Amino acid sequence: MNSLEQQSWQSVHDEVLRRIHTREWKPGDLIPKEVELAEQLGCARATVNRALRELASEGFLDRRRKAGTRVAAHPVRRAKLDIPVIRLEIEGRGQKYAYGLLFSERRTPPPEICANLGVTAESDMLHITSLHLADGKPFMFEDRWVSIAATPTILDADLEKISANEWLVLHAPYTRGDIYFSAVNASAAEAKVLRTDPGTSLFLMERTTWENQTGITSARLLFAPGYRKHSAI
Amino acid sequence: MNSLEQQSWQSVHDEVLRRIHTREWKPGDLIPKEVELAEQLGCARATVNRALRELASEGFLDRRRKAGTRVAAHPVRRAKLDIPVIRLEIEGRGQKYAYGLLFSERRTPPPEICANLGVTAESDMLHITSLHLADGKPFMFEDRWVSIAATPTILDADLEKISANEWLVLHAPYTRGDIYFSAVNASAAEAKVLRTDPGTSLFLMERTTWENQTGITSARLLFAPGYRKHSAI
Repeated sequence: MNSLEQQSWQSVHDEVLRRIHTREWKPGDLIPKEVELAEQLGCARATVNRALRELASEGFLDRRRKAGTRVAAHPVRRAKLDIPVIRLEIEGRGQKYAYGLLFSERRTPPPEICANLGVTAESDMLHITSLHLADGKPFMFEDRWVSIAATPTILDADLEKISANEWLVLHAPYTRGDIYFSAVNASAAEAKVLRTDPGTSLFLMERTTWENQTGITSARLLFAPGYRKHSAI
Repeated sequence: MNSLEQQSWQSVHDEVLRRIHTREWKPGDLIPKEVELAEQLGCARATVNRALRELASEGFLDRRRKAGTRVAAHPVRRAKLDIPVIRLEIEGRGQKYAYGLLFSERRTPPPEICANLGVTAESDMLHITSLHLADGKPFMFEDRWVSIAATPTILDADLEKISANEWLVLHAPYTRGDIYFSAVNASAAEAKVLRTDPGTSLFLMERTTWENQTGITSARLLFAPGYRKHSAI
């Protein structure tokens, strides 16, 4: 895309947003068709299309193929959260990254992991726990199950040297996943690993990923006290 | 966009992803130019562009205007979180929504709110606290500051009937905002409002929004125990 094109859809975006903000177009209103807008604004229909798609993904517009495009009655804001490899997140804060493998063992999974990944209780899996540190302090405790059937090469990975988190990102790209964010009180064991007190409130990310219909990995990522995840919205 | 066009960029997307997954294109590799890909795949350059943009936003590609497009060395996954009006989130779960205003008073803001919104300590603000309920149980405790200078009509809003959350979404569209997710232990007062025990781990969203350079509102949204925020990734 050249910069002129980019400027052009951005300016259409801003003009449409101005009309929404000034209530020239009110919540629930049907807006003009793309061809009409293109004519009004003196640009290509594709440019209008790009701008309207962006505004829809931002939650300002509701687009329905047959019913046309309306100003959202109740804008749903969409936050975009970047989930980098944990080493890069720590280094991005200007902190020194370190990593320690706690254990790695081959075993059959507990019921909640079977349910998450859609595998049977007899599945051959690798259970890996590790600690990620920032400037020598515990940053995140990773408790992960990896399907050996789905990614057999995990058995060749040197998990003392590279975290399962990073190894999987590099060697087992996935097509879809789920992520849940929540808050939990630290158990005695979790508190010990993260060097805090039992009961301390901790931020938890639970991630499960698939390659098409095959469950790859399910992880519980528990962050040290004080962690905040930021997003522009 | 017609459905043929859509199918076409989706199929380019899937073909590029296949090449990344099979390591035909390895992490860090420079990929062919858009015109070359369009020729290879027998489609319009705009279609390739659309597919590559999507793959970049999904974290599979790094696009640099001059340096070209590379397979991401460390894919950054981007989670998209929908943040609807809280009433719609509760109704979307099939639960009955209720809302209670705790208090609304005009006063000058404390230092952390001044810092969040970039306003002075003498600013005229409305401090509103309220409780959102799902099926009669506390769901979320909202502690919010609203700039009266930025949105004077908030003084006419009947905050016994409509929550500040919903009123602001309908009447004060904003251009940008920040959101932070974290976990905190409930204070005695918070525990009482949310009918839980002090120290219970709670999921917290802190949101601050601006209209251009003007701070509109800053809110602390504290969810009852057990709340999980989901995203596809």
